[in-house]
Amino acid sequence: MSKNEQLVVNAIRILSAEGVEKAKSGHPGMPMGAAAMAYAVWGKQMKHNPENPKWPDRDRFVLSSGHGSMLLYSLLHLFGYGLPMEEIQKFRQFGSLTPGHPEHGHTVGIETTTGPLGQGIANAVGFAMAEAHLAEKFNRDGFNVVDHYTYTILGDGCMMEGLSHEACSLAGTLKLNKLIALYDDNEISIEGSTDIAFREDVPTRFRAYGWNVIDVPNGNCYQQVNAALRLAKGSDKPSLLVCHTAIGYGSPKAGMASAHGEPLGEANIQATKEALGWPCMESFEMPNEVYEQTGIVVEKGKQQEQEWLDLFANYVEAYPELAKEWEVWHDESLPFDPMKEEDLWKFEGKAATRNSCGEVLNRLAAKLPNLFGGSADLAPSNKSYMKGLGDFSAEDRSGSNLHFGVREHAMAAICNGIALHGGLRAYCATFFVFSDYMKNAMRMSSIMDLPVTYILSHDSIGVGEDGPTHQPVEQLAGLRAIPGLIVFRPADSREMAAGWVCAMTEKHPTALVTTRQDLPLYEGSGANALKGGYVLSDCEGTPDVLLMASGSEVEQCMGAQELLKQDGIKARVVSMPSFELFDAQDEAYKNSVMPNEVRARVAVEAASSFGWGKYVGLDGATVAMETFGASGPYKLLFPHFGFTSENVAAKAKSVMKK
Amino acid sequence: MSKNEQLVVNAIRILSAEGVEKAKSGHPGMPMGAAAMAYAVWGKQMKHNPENPKWPDRDRFVLSSGHGSMLLYSLLHLFGYGLPMEEIQKFRQFGSLTPGHPEHGHTVGIETTTGPLGQGIANAVGFAMAEAHLAEKFNRDGFNVVDHYTYTILGDGCMMEGLSHEACSLAGTLKLNKLIALYDDNEISIEGSTDIAFREDVPTRFRAYGWNVIDVPNGNCYQQVNAALRLAKGSDKPSLLVCHTAIGYGSPKAGMASAHGEPLGEANIQATKEALGWPCMESFEMPNEVYEQTGIVVEKGKQQEQEWLDLFANYVEAYPELAKEWEVWHDESLPFDPMKEEDLWKFEGKAATRNSCGEVLNRLAAKLPNLFGGSADLAPSNKSYMKGLGDFSAEDRSGSNLHFGVREHAMAAICNGIALHGGLRAYCATFFVFSDYMKNAMRMSSIMDLPVTYILSHDSIGVGEDGPTHQPVEQLAGLRAIPGLIVFRPADSREMAAGWVCAMTEKHPTALVTTRQDLPLYEGSGANALKGGYVLSDCEGTPDVLLMASGSEVEQCMGAQELLKQDGIKARVVSMPSFELFDAQDEAYKNSVMPNEVRARVAVEAASSFGWGKYVGLDGATVAMETFGASGPYKLLFPHFGFTSENVAAKAKSVMKK
Repeated sequence: MSKNEQLVVNAIRILSAEGVEKAKSGHPGMPMGAAAMAYAVWGKQMKHNPENPKWPDRDRFVLSSGHGSMLLYSLLHLFGYGLPMEEIQKFRQFGSLTPGHPEHGHTVGIETTTGPLGQGIANAVGFAMAEAHLAEKFNRDGFNVVDHYTYTILGDGCMMEGLSHEACSLAGTLKLNKLIALYDDNEISIEGSTDIAFREDVPTRFRAYGWNVIDVPNGNCYQQVNAALRLAKGSDKPSLLVCHTAIGYGSPKAGMASAHGEPLGEANIQATKEALGWPCMESFEMPNEVYEQTGIVVEKGKQQEQEWLDLFANYVEAYPELAKEWEVWHDESLPFDPMKEEDLWKFEGKAATRNSCGEVLNRLAAKLPNLFGGSADLAPSNKSYMKGLGDFSAEDRSGSNLHFGVREHAMAAICNGIALHGGLRAYCATFFVFSDYMKNAMRMSSIMDLPVTYILSHDSIGVGEDGPTHQPVEQLAGLRAIPGLIVFRPADSREMAAGWVCAMTEKHPTALVTTRQDLPLYEGSGANALKGGYVLSDCEGTPDVLLMASGSEVEQCMGAQELLKQDGIKARVVSMPSFELFDAQDEAYKNSVMPNEVRARVAVEAASSFGWGKYVGLDGATVAMETFGASGPYKLLFPHFGFTSENVAAKAKSVMKK
Repeated sequence: MSKNEQLVVNAIRILSAEGVEKAKSGHPGMPMGAAAMAYAVWGKQMKHNPENPKWPDRDRFVLSSGHGSMLLYSLLHLFGYGLPMEEIQKFRQFGSLTPGHPEHGHTVGIETTTGPLGQGIANAVGFAMAEAHLAEKFNRDGFNVVDHYTYTILGDGCMMEGLSHEACSLAGTLKLNKLIALYDDNEISIEGSTDIAFREDVPTRFRAYGWNVIDVPNGNCYQQVNAALRLAKGSDKPSLLVCHTAIGYGSPKAGMASAHGEPLGEANIQATKEALGWPCMESFEMPNEVYEQTGIVVEKGKQQEQEWLDLFANYVEAYPELAKEWEVWHDESLPFDPMKEEDLWKFEGKAATRNSCGEVLNRLAAKLPNLFGGSADLAPSNKSYMKGLGDFSAEDRSGSNLHFGVREHAMAAICNGIALHGGLRAYCATFFVFSDYMKNAMRMSSIMDLPVTYILSHDSIGVGEDGPTHQPVEQLAGLRAIPGLIVFRPADSREMAAGWVCAMTEKHPTALVTTRQDLPLYEGSGANALKGGYVLSDCEGTPDVLLMASGSEVEQCMGAQELLKQDGIKARVVSMPSFELFDAQDEAYKNSVMPNEVRARVAVEAASSFGWGKYVGLDGATVAMETFGASGPYKLLFPHFGFTSENVAAKAKSVMKK
């Protein structure tokens, strides 16, 4: 054991405890227990150059136990990622680089935002899938330009979450051998010993998933962990290192639930320093040897990146076409102008938007070979399959279509990992109602501003016979309320194309919400939909009433406009595929679509009216779903729940009387 | 093998296929493959009296693979639950008793609504927990008045869902030996062979959970299944019967993905009849022997219930006090008038509503010993522990506090099972942001109108240092949009008491949304909160402006009212703990709180403004969160995001100018 290496391990422990102490809040126990694991990864095995945290072929590290953020901040500081000690001292303070949970995009070197348990391990599976697919695409004999591992540390909390089951079962099926998970097995949870709620045999569970499981009897010893990491690298399966650790290792609170989520107290920190033989008495004081030791790692990392740069330079010469593709794949902007691609917008006749969605996806896939996605076992229904592009599997990494199994939550979190990795455009698909299952992962897409595309088909009572459990009602409102997520519910095939253009060009995540049933194709629909709301069918002069709808209910508004016209009433139909895009327009445009003086307004949507109030105001009305749906053919359900042109017209007249 | 018993098995297969055929939509494959499993349960082992589907000590049956609803309808019809053949012929039709997925409360004999995969198995765990707790409470030597099994059939889809992991891991930890799950292991999913996405070793996984796993080589043979069920009943662990079946058994499409979700076709049905030696050629024609055979089961069930009724009559004599408690526990109405319980409403000084929530919970627990609930490993934080009432565990079934582990989704779905079982009042608790993880199970509470109480603490940026991943923004909007769910966000401790009263008296599920930080106690708060919105602090005469808020932001409205008064502006403060309760009031009351003529309105909420439009209209404004939060002390975050009395007052002036 190298004295200096052990010093770095203890530095992580001490620094983490001191950061929490200064903040007077946080989680000291996890970083102290996981310090040796983290050092074995960061100091011994991980390929990284702290001076260039964006090096594409770096190994990835994911702290799935995000509450242990001080572990990550200690590592970033000690290993020279440019996180100064002053920021460590501002842990959990407003405006600091060291927030309560690690935030990707906020602090350099953080690969993903974690905190909600289970998300990180699923992101890690996404990283490993991206690596495998890109390696298959770009590597050539002697040119392994994509060749890196994904490491993740997770604890009992992640293990209990269903998300870890979904992600790890899939990882085993796919034999993602470059995924190495370190399980911080400390037997402590917030309510006490894990024994009260969690007695499962985790190693056996992971063997059942097809993982390579390695027991590390003393997870507080970096050398034992390092030896296990070496073994893991030789496996043809994903590896789980079961590291037996003590929460709050080194402190008098070691092994206790109270070490989890509160500062240790100054006296306990002093006792810890004594127990670990720590040479510095001052807070945040580090012996020079610590930085000398991590400096060796930085040097090695710089050298590794240089070797890769040399390799890549030769690759560019040897495979200029591939190198050009590499550039395109790693550029987030579109390699063509979608407005000029006439074929993208060409449709004829009626179509369910799920079908036109699949059509546009396939048109795009022909131009964007780095599309990488699939469905949670519903590809035939939500039309999310890219024809002729193969299936990604344990045996074949070249396929672009993913089979997630019935695992919605992991699907979304994996797509976050794929998007974070870079090089690929991630999408996923399920029934709209099952967005419920992946809600938090969709939130994480938004928090990180990842351009993940969500295809959410079967979007209303239009689902029909499957009944209320399968008919979304509140999901539009729920997703529209997420900051940064663009919810796009097209009224016809051309609006559908606009939705895809939005998804491929916005930095934000986009949810494409599609019908099961056929919809008309409207004159004048198309790229206008990118404004979120627009006048699809106008009347002459100032309208008496505005009829607004998204998706399939535009049809009832168009019918109502016609009926009202017969009664001499001027109605304007506003198609509103996306609240978010509309709200982002300037006031003049918004007022041109919905003039402030026109207060007779009716919004129509086969979903909860919740959220439409901002457009219809106190004097308007909605035709919407205020209950759950019912099982039956949709052609009966629509009139039953009031979605007819006649009812919309009647509602319009009633608001005009107000 | 009895010829007639085999005939019933085939009757289930044929009837299910014919129901789907007539509907021209549905899932024939699952019922055909699971018919033998279902018969072994319903015909051989399950204790049930079809003539009284509400018998409290009946065994429970949960079809977790809800898409196989025709299986359940066939069983209900054939076993004499009063579901006529005409209803089978109206499968998936509007208004029928046979909707696309089984709906509890809609069709007699259906224990829970299923369809979203994984929910059923987790409900079943809840049933088994309820049974164990009630048995411990009420049974006495020679008087096992609570003594029943919970059976569930689940397929590959449920197995892949994270929810099944959470629920089954907990079931193993708790050694729920009266839970018997039959796994329909047919190796087929919608996208094809399960091999493409699901290669895990399920039996090993369940052994890792601590289950008793029994292999049934031929799951299409009811006798093999029956033999395994007998073994399972002797186990001290929950049991998983791994039944190897063929989807679409008996038909030419057996073992094919195409048997899953579409009608077989008339020719294939004829071929199936031939293959199974079915004696009737007409659709929906059943041989008399089928009903004769199931009639034997009905007779046995009637006798079993009669024996129980005799036992219970003797129990009433032997244990009159317990029998009286039994009545109270099984009565959903409150055994006292909460309005007259002065102690329930007594509070002093400032308090975080999470603390007063815990206080009220404990006051109620003293009067309602059938409260049964707990937290997903956050009890110390969300104050959901009932002091002195013990912990429910494998070793002790008497405890009323549940430790769910870090398993939010299963927690909610288990509470649905507990509520469905009857006899107990179910509640559960986590951080508000993690309601995301259990969204669909909360939806299921609402679809079934189950009085489950959700305690959701740490309800805004008031969370502070934990940062954006832990700060809810869109969750209020998302939950408010669910039909039937009551979302209650109290402004102080007395409103908190009102929230609990609502939760204990409404038939609907209730979400109690509480703060981490201290809040004032307002004069005039209290039972008025049960109206959802009320005038907390008024001005003289008609208000110039309405200030509305829920929860912690009532404080900024009160401050703004004071500031505006200094400027001669009359502001009314409306406390809005619950949109749903307010919307349910009559128009006169609503207009008395928010007079239609007062258009200057400001809503204040440390959450997305989404949904407030219906109260503030086109001329009002909101002070709300339009982005995610940030990590830092909440006393800095509140002003940073605009939640100050000064900003609310300024906003009020700006809307008055409109």
